[in-house]
Amino acid sequence: MHGRMMFQPLLISSLLEHAATYHSDTAIISKNTNGTITQTNWGNISDNAKRGAKALADLKLAHGDCVATLAWNNHRHLESWYAISGSGLICHTINPRLFPEQLIFIINDAKDKAILFDKTFLPLIIAIKAHIPLVESYICLDEYDEVVAQALPDVKFYDDLIKDYAVDYEWPEFDETTASSLCYTSGTTGNPKGALYTHRSTLLHSFAASLPDSMNLSAKDIILPVVPMFHVQAWGTPYAAAMVGASMIFPGPGLDGDSLVQLIDEYHVTIALGVPTIWQGLLASAKKLASSLDSLKRNVIGGSACPPSMLNTFRDVYGCETIHAWGMTEASPLGTANQLKAKHKDLDTQQQTQIRLSQGRPPYGVALRLVDGEKGTQLLSHDGETIGNLQIKGHWIIERYFAQTETSLTTDGWFDTGDIASLDRDGYLHISDRAKDLIKSGGEWISSVELENIAMGHPEIVMAAVIAATHPKWDERPVLIAVKAKDSTLTEHDLISFYHDKIAKWQMPDKVIFVDAIPLSGTGKMLKRKLREDFGSVLLEENV
Amino acid sequence: MHGRMMFQPLLISSLLEHAATYHSDTAIISKNTNGTITQTNWGNISDNAKRGAKALADLKLAHGDCVATLAWNNHRHLESWYAISGSGLICHTINPRLFPEQLIFIINDAKDKAILFDKTFLPLIIAIKAHIPLVESYICLDEYDEVVAQALPDVKFYDDLIKDYAVDYEWPEFDETTASSLCYTSGTTGNPKGALYTHRSTLLHSFAASLPDSMNLSAKDIILPVVPMFHVQAWGTPYAAAMVGASMIFPGPGLDGDSLVQLIDEYHVTIALGVPTIWQGLLASAKKLASSLDSLKRNVIGGSACPPSMLNTFRDVYGCETIHAWGMTEASPLGTANQLKAKHKDLDTQQQTQIRLSQGRPPYGVALRLVDGEKGTQLLSHDGETIGNLQIKGHWIIERYFAQTETSLTTDGWFDTGDIASLDRDGYLHISDRAKDLIKSGGEWISSVELENIAMGHPEIVMAAVIAATHPKWDERPVLIAVKAKDSTLTEHDLISFYHDKIAKWQMPDKVIFVDAIPLSGTGKMLKRKLREDFGSVLLEENV
Repeated sequence: MHGRMMFQPLLISSLLEHAATYHSDTAIISKNTNGTITQTNWGNISDNAKRGAKALADLKLAHGDCVATLAWNNHRHLESWYAISGSGLICHTINPRLFPEQLIFIINDAKDKAILFDKTFLPLIIAIKAHIPLVESYICLDEYDEVVAQALPDVKFYDDLIKDYAVDYEWPEFDETTASSLCYTSGTTGNPKGALYTHRSTLLHSFAASLPDSMNLSAKDIILPVVPMFHVQAWGTPYAAAMVGASMIFPGPGLDGDSLVQLIDEYHVTIALGVPTIWQGLLASAKKLASSLDSLKRNVIGGSACPPSMLNTFRDVYGCETIHAWGMTEASPLGTANQLKAKHKDLDTQQQTQIRLSQGRPPYGVALRLVDGEKGTQLLSHDGETIGNLQIKGHWIIERYFAQTETSLTTDGWFDTGDIASLDRDGYLHISDRAKDLIKSGGEWISSVELENIAMGHPEIVMAAVIAATHPKWDERPVLIAVKAKDSTLTEHDLISFYHDKIAKWQMPDKVIFVDAIPLSGTGKMLKRKLREDFGSVLLEENV
Repeated sequence: MHGRMMFQPLLISSLLEHAATYHSDTAIISKNTNGTITQTNWGNISDNAKRGAKALADLKLAHGDCVATLAWNNHRHLESWYAISGSGLICHTINPRLFPEQLIFIINDAKDKAILFDKTFLPLIIAIKAHIPLVESYICLDEYDEVVAQALPDVKFYDDLIKDYAVDYEWPEFDETTASSLCYTSGTTGNPKGALYTHRSTLLHSFAASLPDSMNLSAKDIILPVVPMFHVQAWGTPYAAAMVGASMIFPGPGLDGDSLVQLIDEYHVTIALGVPTIWQGLLASAKKLASSLDSLKRNVIGGSACPPSMLNTFRDVYGCETIHAWGMTEASPLGTANQLKAKHKDLDTQQQTQIRLSQGRPPYGVALRLVDGEKGTQLLSHDGETIGNLQIKGHWIIERYFAQTETSLTTDGWFDTGDIASLDRDGYLHISDRAKDLIKSGGEWISSVELENIAMGHPEIVMAAVIAATHPKWDERPVLIAVKAKDSTLTEHDLISFYHDKIAKWQMPDKVIFVDAIPLSGTGKMLKRKLREDFGSVLLEENV
């Protein structure tokens, strides 16, 4: 028997309708590429999204077509998202840090019919335009600009394109499993692969991400998504913020520490989200600028493991609660978030910190398990100690990649994350490593993350990466690549000694290489692949 | 184009699976009818729910059958809920405070095939048994009891019924719009009508109810649902708690202030939920027992408007944040909850209190509007001043009542709540009255709720109800029915004088009647219908 409740599809447009109706004057602050600030609100975002939806329809874009965005975090990008997905098109967010060949590949793979781009990416557009023949419309997310108009004769300008439309647009209603957005994983081997989200998966993810034990989002919040909108959709915050009526501060391209500290202080940001390298920059700037980051109550760390020292600094110096989270493009991205339980209330700070350093536990809607290998079938114990291949299942986890005919799941319906981890009885996840970043030394596994965290705890180390270097005897041995603080005179010997009472001798790095900078991906993750290319043979050379 | 995400139906069983997997040892404390305490946890609840599902199947109950529960808030009741709905049956929660004729009506209307009941309701069962021939199985939610066995020869005992089943049960998968639960509204005229919830509506409601701006539920919480499970399913807390992994304290039948203070203090309750009359009792007991209710961080008030004095006492004396909420059986029940926005941060306490006294604003998933009459079609302004008939729409709002062939909605798809209210631009709802409780005096509306709140602010008044009494000249005039504090010598004249500088003269009650007690419904609401019967003609008599 069916129940007798109203049925409404879970559509992305309904998020914006909610925000525009009940949070119309809630501020959306946007830092433009030229450094100016645009102050708008959910009411105006909704109006412009409706105008945008009409404009896209008049460009002959039809239900199910892909529309690409190549833009920083700003208000026009936000409006475009809602215009695109809300009207039944698919919003394909592109990472501008990809190599041109990769950009060309994914735009053609998605069959993008239009590209909305920030002016700053004009050179990129010009470089690839000849190779993306399916793209019919180029829309610059800005007001009219002579330089752009001359370089791209058929370009349209967003402000002009939408300005004359009335806002009497009704969002269409369609099946909630309709594709809403497309995000390619950068991928370390082969071509990038696309995760094709649905309206339903996005809405359920928004609920879960906003829960008190996830990011704890409400209308009291002023959210700063430092994580780019092209990186798993800024971890879903533009959707979650509309759901809960939160204010948003869009940082534009300026993700350096000084810019972020200024935004946080000026706009009273309560929660900010980004990868560890972002926080490193922020902490350095806060110290330099003597800011106490008063308004900042929470920061969410994902993308890479959070070094313990960072969590302590945020808590002790800035009174800011660090929420350690884990996710992936294929998981929309929320897999786990770290919050304590009622039973942890009486633990002391150190014991609580120990728990909070894990990647946290899954919200309702996600299930995790450990098996003995990527295609493993044997379930491993969730005892907090056993290490295995992490697999995931849930409402916002992909079933297969875009345009693939084969499922990406195991025969019993789980997605293999490529991560190596343990799980305890309470669901707290400890990621040991990406499967490919684990170091296998003489048959024993060594975690590069653990070694990195120790190095990051040294006061004179700014950044640290540990890679598996090929070794003639042990197959692989850990090598530490590190960036010293300015003026530090730290030596390799000093740093190795720093490990002495912290880990077993056989786990210690064989070598330390100091560098000026560690190469980062567009989303701020350390490019270990590049480091392995550069330094993976360093132990062979020495043993020659 | 469909997206490429996993599809899992939103089923109630998945809530329990989540709680059992990641919050297995989280405590469920249950006060039994005989006063003893049972300590269990989500892991055991899940095991017993699976045993229960098997037992129900062996009683020849099949997908879509209704199974009634007649029980207080306790752990066996909780297990039964999940066993019933999780296995595809419909859980029909019955309010034992209904009159026997009403009980008979709803049990027959629902075609209940089995009744699970607390031993304490044996007399009720015996009284109605002859009139509910469709009921095939009687299950006493207890261990074997001689008295029950003798009175009901064919009765089964829950503990015995489930104990021998193994827990190797897999919850069945079915369409998420399948009926999960049935709850009748007591109704003031005609027969009670049933709201038939779905698995999907329950799951989406659980998400919304747990959000930071609703009840803010997490695994840090220890929840005390004082509101009975037969009253709109304890406002959905048994589902929301499983979703977030919260601990629960079930108070059994003891809803008096002393019992509640003891439970809160002994089990470190962080959030409690109930109607205003419950909180009145709690505050009196806390004072008497000199408890500071240390652990209690939030209390949720719904069912009737929250008197301002109560909100102030909870905040100032107990450091407890009162969340004023509004809902109804037809809305699962969450319609609005009161939390501030970022822009309210710098208001002073008095200004914040003013906002927090409203019923709050809708979470994502609910939309509200005002129209000019129950069947009105003209939309009224949401300006915070205009008063109109409140209508509602959303994922967890009913479309029609159980077994009705006609929709309960307006032609454009809204449900009329029967409440009279205003809405401001931020979505904050001010309920003026139930449509039928408004007083129409000489063509002008007077709010009974406002008059009651003023009376409740008098230190010597324990409870107050205002009704519309028939008046020969003005059609209706307000009459105040009040309960004085013990030993108070307050007079009618004193109380009328208390209104003098608070409202316009024409709004003042024509008369005060002091009574020893105001009749309450099973869920603790004042029975105004009864008061109108008793006192509705009092002004006619005087004017004779």
